[in-house]
Amino acid sequence: MDNRRDFLKKTALAGTALVAGGGLLESCKRGDSVRAGNSVGSSKLIVPKAAGVPITGTFLDEISHDIPHQNWGEAEWDRDFAYMKAVGIRDVIVIRCGYRKFLTYPSPYLLKKGCYMPSVDLVDMFCRLSDKYGMKFWFGLYDSGVRYPDGAAEDMENNKFVIEEAWEMYGRKYKSFSGWYLSKEFSRRRMGMIDAYHALGRQCKDISGGHPTFISPFIDGKKQVYKEKEVTVVEHERDWDEIFSGIHDVVDACAFQDGHVDYDELDMYLTVNKRLADKYGMQSWTNAETFDRDMPIRFLPIKFDKLRFKLEAAKRCGYDKAITFEFSHFMSPQSAYLQAGHLYDRYCEYFGI
Amino acid sequence: MDNRRDFLKKTALAGTALVAGGGLLESCKRGDSVRAGNSVGSSKLIVPKAAGVPITGTFLDEISHDIPHQNWGEAEWDRDFAYMKAVGIRDVIVIRCGYRKFLTYPSPYLLKKGCYMPSVDLVDMFCRLSDKYGMKFWFGLYDSGVRYPDGAAEDMENNKFVIEEAWEMYGRKYKSFSGWYLSKEFSRRRMGMIDAYHALGRQCKDISGGHPTFISPFIDGKKQVYKEKEVTVVEHERDWDEIFSGIHDVVDACAFQDGHVDYDELDMYLTVNKRLADKYGMQSWTNAETFDRDMPIRFLPIKFDKLRFKLEAAKRCGYDKAITFEFSHFMSPQSAYLQAGHLYDRYCEYFGI
Amino acid sequence: MDNRRDFLKKTALAGTALVAGGGLLESCKRGDSVRAGNSVGSSKLIVPKAAGVPITGTFLDEISHDIPHQNWGEAEWDRDFAYMKAVGIRDVIVIRCGYRKFLTYPSPYLLKKGCYMPSVDLVDMFCRLSDKYGMKFWFGLYDSGVRYPDGAAEDMENNKFVIEEAWEMYGRKYKSFSGWYLSKEFSRRRMGMIDAYHALGRQCKDISGGHPTFISPFIDGKKQVYKEKEVTVVEHERDWDEIFSGIHDVVDACAFQDGHVDYDELDMYLTVNKRLADKYGMQSWTNAETFDRDMPIRFLPIKFDKLRFKLEAAKRCGYDKAITFEFSHFMSPQSAYLQAGHLYDRYCEYFGI
Repeated sequence: MDNRRDFLKKTALAGTALVAGGGLLESCKRGDSVRAGNSVGSSKLIVPKAAGVPITGTFLDEISHDIPHQNWGEAEWDRDFAYMKAVGIRDVIVIRCGYRKFLTYPSPYLLKKGCYMPSVDLVDMFCRLSDKYGMKFWFGLYDSGVRYPDGAAEDMENNKFVIEEAWEMYGRKYKSFSGWYLSKEFSRRRMGMIDAYHALGRQCKDISGGHPTFISPFIDGKKQVYKEKEVTVVEHERDWDEIFSGIHDVVDACAFQDGHVDYDELDMYLTVNKRLADKYGMQSWTNAETFDRDMPIRFLPIKFDKLRFKLEAAKRCGYDKAITFEFSHFMSPQSAYLQAGHLYDRYCEYFGI
Repeated sequence: MDNRRDFLKKTALAGTALVAGGGLLESCKRGDSVRAGNSVGSSKLIVPKAAGVPITGTFLDEISHDIPHQNWGEAEWDRDFAYMKAVGIRDVIVIRCGYRKFLTYPSPYLLKKGCYMPSVDLVDMFCRLSDKYGMKFWFGLYDSGVRYPDGAAEDMENNKFVIEEAWEMYGRKYKSFSGWYLSKEFSRRRMGMIDAYHALGRQCKDISGGHPTFISPFIDGKKQVYKEKEVTVVEHERDWDEIFSGIHDVVDACAFQDGHVDYDELDMYLTVNKRLADKYGMQSWTNAETFDRDMPIRFLPIKFDKLRFKLEAAKRCGYDKAITFEFSHFMSPQSAYLQAGHLYDRYCEYFGI
Repeated sequence: MDNRRDFLKKTALAGTALVAGGGLLESCKRGDSVRAGNSVGSSKLIVPKAAGVPITGTFLDEISHDIPHQNWGEAEWDRDFAYMKAVGIRDVIVIRCGYRKFLTYPSPYLLKKGCYMPSVDLVDMFCRLSDKYGMKFWFGLYDSGVRYPDGAAEDMENNKFVIEEAWEMYGRKYKSFSGWYLSKEFSRRRMGMIDAYHALGRQCKDISGGHPTFISPFIDGKKQVYKEKEVTVVEHERDWDEIFSGIHDVVDACAFQDGHVDYDELDMYLTVNKRLADKYGMQSWTNAETFDRDMPIRFLPIKFDKLRFKLEAAKRCGYDKAITFEFSHFMSPQSAYLQAGHLYDRYCEYFGI
């Protein structure tokens, strides 16, 4: 009888029979076709559909920095890759392979330095799943948690070993290993930063036979909580002109985070960022954040229309590639934040998926 | 096999077969009878049942101000109206039709001023659902995000157009369109406020042939984070006597928020508020907040007993109508906050629903 | 059709048929065997299994202090006890029977003093469920919310009555009533604290024929937000030597909270704490917190590996008993925080449950 009550209570969380009967990927595929069919019928959009840049890449937030961990095992990750695939994601980027003492993989070098042994080799798992689902896997470098310029040497030294390990342990082995993410998030030119990015990018490309590299910095805008001072777009352009000038030969793409400025300012920044990237022959992507920076809870999934505004702004400004931070917490149907599953639905509805 | 594990893991989140087989409303109705039947059997209440004022109205938190968005589509909203109906809610109030640049409906006037186009006409959807479920729909005015007295003129000017649009677009069309909510939340008398409320209330009533209007202010109590100073109940009564005196001919009801003072002080404030309303021939409702102001996470659903204390205090003080902020996040069985569904159950148990 | 969409959307939240068909406890038992079988197959652990101290006790967070309430009724609590049992928990500890005006049980003494009447007698319910599931129930004393030394007398006076009530109302009646938890959480020696602990411990033991008592203090470490100053381990040992010296004849065990110091410092503190307890013939348990203190949301479930680090540190330092704060929010498959269910799975996987 108690269970009968539950039956009724959680109708919105339901879902068994179809899934139970089939394999994961098949049920996801079926799910999406069913989902799309229904979505079209169920909401009345008053804006043009698919007018934004679609999201084709996502970070994998391991090691988690300020987003609570979901404690997924391989079964959940496998299912999440299926959900990603169904929605058009083809690139997955481990945001950092380690942060301070926490690691995603059993790095011989970092373990000797006192880092903690992880219970699962997440990099190996992500590579296997990327192979299985035909994704491109990007490896995010280690973050020592130091500040530049003082910590630059330490960061460089650590990553010298990490890059080598990553290539030997995963790069040579997995077909899906496709590129490198230089994980340090800068907002402006700092002493030592250009040299560091350049040296790391160079090493990544050399060891891997030229695999692409990218960065995903943030703009020191009004929503950046820890900012030293809010920059003007002029300062922003001047700083990044100098940075791109110094790194463009070893960094292939730049995906600025789109959440630190107001929706109104986004066209301006997107335009400047693309102009700079074009000038130096780099690709310009947008990192369309799927969490909401405007709420007191830090952080839950973004309101769909805000995401739409940002993807449409990117389209207007000539972008053709969007990645996001990140699918699994903020957009996945199996996220612990149930708003994420609804964002997934709204996204599918809008893009006709 | 993986799915089999999930079967067991999430027993509390289960629920499919009954719902899948029937229409939404029917399954909700059935659900509630089943729910009630079980609830009676499963918990041992040691207090008298239904000793509080029942909640018969709820805000619809669009545009969301500090509560993260659930990203529901029309299917989820339709289901939520069914859940509301089942629990006795008859009034739904859009808390504001717009806030700064974010809109619930495609306002020709506000879009021209630079507001963002929403992907769905939520006001239209809420009116349709209100018609479908026999609810009374209340339209909340636009909030320019300005501070009084400086911004009063801007707020007034914008709403002059918004009220006209709302009436033309929805008021004339939908049977459920029943009243107006003057959405600016004041705590005390401010320069310009009485004039503003009076003008807006007057316009709302004139255009709609006298549809009722109401306000839902807060008390500058100890839990009001942004307070300038905590008021005494004497100051509170003096301020609101002056305000009611100035607006009572065009504002039909006042529903003070009940969450800013301690549970101990509530009888005192409820008594004063009702005395004032009675004096001016206004109706006195209580806005029984269903989120918890006492926790570090801002905000999750309230503990049932706290809600009960507040509804019982209202009953003791002679109130007969309670609305809430708000059902869909904090009390709905399909809320992303699962505590809300359990609050729904506790509420049904207590009121014998 | 709408429901069909939901079927697919929430695959991770599914789970009905097996549970619906059987009793709660049976389905949990079956669930765990299925769970374990699958877990072994589905994740690839690269660390030795079960190398940490298993958790065999949990607090019951009623009255909730800074963790939002789940609004569970008896059905949910019954199910949670089944989940606890399945994972090896044998001790349940009501963290406090009352806090300021909020009560878990209808205390004649405290109600007369103005506390609020609870709608359910939670202590009675927890005792009944403990009897049903073969758990040991521990009763947590009342917290007046006062600061020591000024409030010590008030706290002592109140608890003098509360201990008597608890023993008369529940201790004599329920087989599961097994011990007492002295609920005041201290970090260091404070004036009046030793006398208070001693007097309360003495009374608890005397009235109940020697039932065991324990405390669960915190370390004034770097993660203690409200600390006056961060203590060194030397100061910590000196303070607690004095405290244990004064209370060891009436306090049987001490379970320091393990979340206020860094993972690196834990061995040091665990060693010191055990040395002290051994010196005074007390038992040394660890309170392995299952919420994450490193995240901006206060608080969500901890990342499994962090919990593992702490349980393994306890094992290394010679501990054999771990309790947690707390199962129902942070580790239960039916928690409103879905990360908790996944933590449960990871925990089962690691311990081969």
